[in-house]
Amino acid sequence: MEAPKVIKGVSQPPNVNLSSVRKLRKKRQELSVETFVEGILKGDRVRLGQAITLIESTKSSHQAKAQAIINTCLPHTGKSFRLGITGSPGVGKSTFIESYGQHIIQQGHQVAVLAVDPSSQISQGSILGDKTRMFNLSTHPKAFIRPSPAGESLGGVARKTRETIMLCEAAGYDFIIIETVGVGQSEIAVHSMVDFFLLLLLPGAGDELQGIKKGIVEMADLIAINKADGKNATKAKQSRREYGSALHIMPPKSSGWTPTATVCAGLSGMGIPDIWDIQQQYQTKMTDNGFFKNNRQNQSQYWLHETIQNQLKQLFYENEAVKNVLKEKENAILKGELSPFKGAEELMDLFLKNNQ
Amino acid sequence: MEAPKVIKGVSQPPNVNLSSVRKLRKKRQELSVETFVEGILKGDRVRLGQAITLIESTKSSHQAKAQAIINTCLPHTGKSFRLGITGSPGVGKSTFIESYGQHIIQQGHQVAVLAVDPSSQISQGSILGDKTRMFNLSTHPKAFIRPSPAGESLGGVARKTRETIMLCEAAGYDFIIIETVGVGQSEIAVHSMVDFFLLLLLPGAGDELQGIKKGIVEMADLIAINKADGKNATKAKQSRREYGSALHIMPPKSSGWTPTATVCAGLSGMGIPDIWDIQQQYQTKMTDNGFFKNNRQNQSQYWLHETIQNQLKQLFYENEAVKNVLKEKENAILKGELSPFKGAEELMDLFLKNNQ
Repeated sequence: MEAPKVIKGVSQPPNVNLSSVRKLRKKRQELSVETFVEGILKGDRVRLGQAITLIESTKSSHQAKAQAIINTCLPHTGKSFRLGITGSPGVGKSTFIESYGQHIIQQGHQVAVLAVDPSSQISQGSILGDKTRMFNLSTHPKAFIRPSPAGESLGGVARKTRETIMLCEAAGYDFIIIETVGVGQSEIAVHSMVDFFLLLLLPGAGDELQGIKKGIVEMADLIAINKADGKNATKAKQSRREYGSALHIMPPKSSGWTPTATVCAGLSGMGIPDIWDIQQQYQTKMTDNGFFKNNRQNQSQYWLHETIQNQLKQLFYENEAVKNVLKEKENAILKGELSPFKGAEELMDLFLKNNQ
Repeated sequence: MEAPKVIKGVSQPPNVNLSSVRKLRKKRQELSVETFVEGILKGDRVRLGQAITLIESTKSSHQAKAQAIINTCLPHTGKSFRLGITGSPGVGKSTFIESYGQHIIQQGHQVAVLAVDPSSQISQGSILGDKTRMFNLSTHPKAFIRPSPAGESLGGVARKTRETIMLCEAAGYDFIIIETVGVGQSEIAVHSMVDFFLLLLLPGAGDELQGIKKGIVEMADLIAINKADGKNATKAKQSRREYGSALHIMPPKSSGWTPTATVCAGLSGMGIPDIWDIQQQYQTKMTDNGFFKNNRQNQSQYWLHETIQNQLKQLFYENEAVKNVLKEKENAILKGELSPFKGAEELMDLFLKNNQ
């Protein structure tokens, strides 16, 4: 598949005047909450994109507006299926999503693809950054693709992605895919915002070799061995058997769902309809037994307290008085001159005295 | 082994006058920091016990004194080997510690046995609470046994135990055993305060059946199959083989140490010297490669930030203004009337306005 030279949702004039672009951008962000919400609910992709930019902004006025937009959109959120996809770099996540996303659209859905990639502040958006890897999906009128917010911490990135999910739902996207690299903590964050968690693996190599932690295998609702066609077919079937057995002896999930392993190939589309079927079965079963709703409610509670705790930490560690002495206290602790508890007490005192 | 009727460190007069006891207690706690420290450094068990009571107290004046004592003792702390022991109820932890503790003393050490058991507030100290299960050790002049502080949260209990470790070290105990039930989060807390982590298992049953999570097996530096003598011998050897293979395929530890599985019997003493040998090898290797010191420093950093974050949470969730509306906000979120992020924002605003 050849990559086209320019892929953009909105075309730009050939001789771009930077100051007029800035003015235009400023004007956009001065739109009222009502205008944003109206646009989003009509499925206006430009308004949706602008609202997500507000979510991603660090300016407090933008944040306040973003929160107001999200809360006004609230009655229109939640009516989607949220799919998390993880796997090591090189497992073929983009090609899989390109293929699976189109299959989802063929089933009559509108799909939004988001990412949680805290490393994107360094790599300039490694996941989804290169839309050319999902050419057909990124140019499809029923698909909306947004790279990972280039944020501070994982907590911040995850929170912004979760807020973005809600706006995409309000804009009519009833199938949300959230992609992450399964090598760190980010998959835990993604797991806490999705209904179904898919782990992509390569044929042959064990999970240790692929850098996948045991905990991630335990979170998976389905394991798909990708790139499983052609010369990989035999190896892939063996991997499927091995993971099938491994999944079988794992402790039962609170959902009552028994995860399985399957094979697929994002490039040729092999196995894609099977994955769709499994996921449909899951959705039916989980809706019937009440897990779907319960899980969503637990996730909301989790996000309330997670957000609070992240903000408390931010408040503390960004306090000037704390920042000024933190390194010094840490060094005293390392040298054994100060107990960690006394150190904590001194820093807390400082924080309380200097917090507004 | 028959349990004696009364086992107490200090004998009491037969006709006890409650008000005079209270006065005596009050007087004890009015002792100066210097008196406490002097007593502790001399190895005075009564002073040590009283100082630990200050650590466990919720009164802020006691807390302040406890922190001052710990910080003054600081230069005399750290010179011990800290062993964490976990395992399901019924695995024979107390009997193992009774046996292993005596072996440690025979090697010329003084041993302190502590526990992290957040459930003890309900069960009145299930672990170590019944000292009769460690009769020889509890009456030995070179051993000091203290049940789990009956504290609030796991964070609080863990913190108090870690502070207690430091005072025991200052009092000359150069071998610290910290016991916990391996069924929840407490073993993570214990793992973060010890040098070596021992997992006790029963012969035959797989780790799933024993309620042990995969993550705990991964934390172990040694697995000991307890009660492995007599009619259990064959089954135990098979378990050792199985766990040996399982440990072998686990990702390598940052310490460079390769965990193994062994067999023992706390009651008969079978295998106890082997465990001592393994642990000695560990200590030598980790001291040589620098991991021992590095790990201790990382743990101190961890405790600094863990303590701060626990105190921030406490500050927030115990704030009256927050407490008054938290339930209401949670319900609004469950009903889909409020986004978790907007809810967090509102609660944070309330907290900031009403914090002192």
